Amino acid sequence: MDDLIDKIRKFRQERDWDQYHSPKKLAMALVVEAGELAEHFQWLTEEQSSNLSPDKLAEVQEEIGDVLIYLVNLCDKLGVDPLDAAREKIRKNKEKYPV
Amino acid sequence: MDDLIDKIRKFRQERDWDQYHSPKKLAMALVVEAGELAEHFQWLTEEQSSNLSPDKLAEVQEEIGDVLIYLVNLCDKLGVDPLDAAREKIRKNKEKYPV
Amino acid sequence: MDDLIDKIRKFRQERDWDQYHSPKKLAMALVVEAGELAEHFQWLTEEQSSNLSPDKLAEVQEEIGDVLIYLVNLCDKLGVDPLDAAREKIRKNKEKYPV
Amino acid sequence: MDDLIDKIRKFRQERDWDQYHSPKKLAMALVVEAGELAEHFQWLTEEQSSNLSPDKLAEVQEEIGDVLIYLVNLCDKLGVDPLDAAREKIRKNKEKYPV
Repeated sequence: MDDLIDKIRKFRQERDWDQYHSPKKLAMALVVEAGELAEHFQWLTEEQSSNLSPDKLAEVQEEIGDVLIYLVNLCDKLGVDPLDAAREKIRKNKEKYPV
Repeated sequence: MDDLIDKIRKFRQERDWDQYHSPKKLAMALVVEAGELAEHFQWLTEEQSSNLSPDKLAEVQEEIGDVLIYLVNLCDKLGVDPLDAAREKIRKNKEKYPV
Repeated sequence: MDDLIDKIRKFRQERDWDQYHSPKKLAMALVVEAGELAEHFQWLTEEQSSNLSPDKLAEVQEEIGDVLIYLVNLCDKLGVDPLDAAREKIRKNKEKYPV
Repeated sequence: MDDLIDKIRKFRQERDWDQYHSPKKLAMALVVEAGELAEHFQWLTEEQSSNLSPDKLAEVQEEIGDVLIYLVNLCDKLGVDPLDAAREKIRKNKEKYPV
């Protein structure tokens, strides 16, 4: 993850894109990309969604990449560690939904 | 990230939730969570979104955790490595948007 | 629809909310509300989604109201007639997907 | 609105698409389309979003059409009147946010 964060920062800085990247815009871009990811699944049955063709899977993987990139950009702007955020949420979910 | 994936798998398996987790449902849950994350920013100006109060930031961090948990669950079901997906997308973006 | 547009305008103006309602913010609010609507369906099977309990249906109806209110607000700001927009899209869809 | 509902029903029935249109799928399609609509605004400032070029406005109008078509399809499946749903929500909002 640290390596990914570095790559994303470098990509952004080389293009001077920091100016466009307010947390608000990044949050909006994230939901837009999540929508594009969901679009690949919208007319599939549950079962079909578990058996994607290699071509479809490649497209889905690209959307997953987009979602994670925007999430990491957002975290970077907010000073949030994404892995910590997820781990802390799992801790809360464990209390909320005991085994 | 490997540690997070382990934690998420274990959480799911202990609750026998695999049955509910088709890629389709996870993709839908992901966009719903991304919407909840965006909701925190919707009435803010760009500037306000860069200066969240500690309370607000804690709420946002929790939503970020949710988004990443669903993304990792989806990747796990599809056999996709999320970090690889993001790195590959950055490679493509570098070609598309040269410095 | 004209009556609804009048009601929505009046509601907005009485509260002096025009200032918050840029098309950008309204588009973001719309996708957030659409996410809340989708949330009611995310863990249901297709069949369950066709057989909502009266309580659930009432909640869903409220989210539908929110989605339409933001859509009408957005249209009003942009000078777009929502019914015309939908009718024109149906015309295009007819050409794209012949019977 | 009644005329639009008729057109949408006829379009669906002529193509025998009723089978694909569970409320769940329609709710998912709706949030995907709302995301496409939001995409047009994501990198704009508030001010730019109020001053779209005619070309951009035409694209936005098409997305608005898509959102309304899926919303009406969903309402039709659920037996919900979209205008009533919005009017009832305005009534509730009036109590929640007094002038």
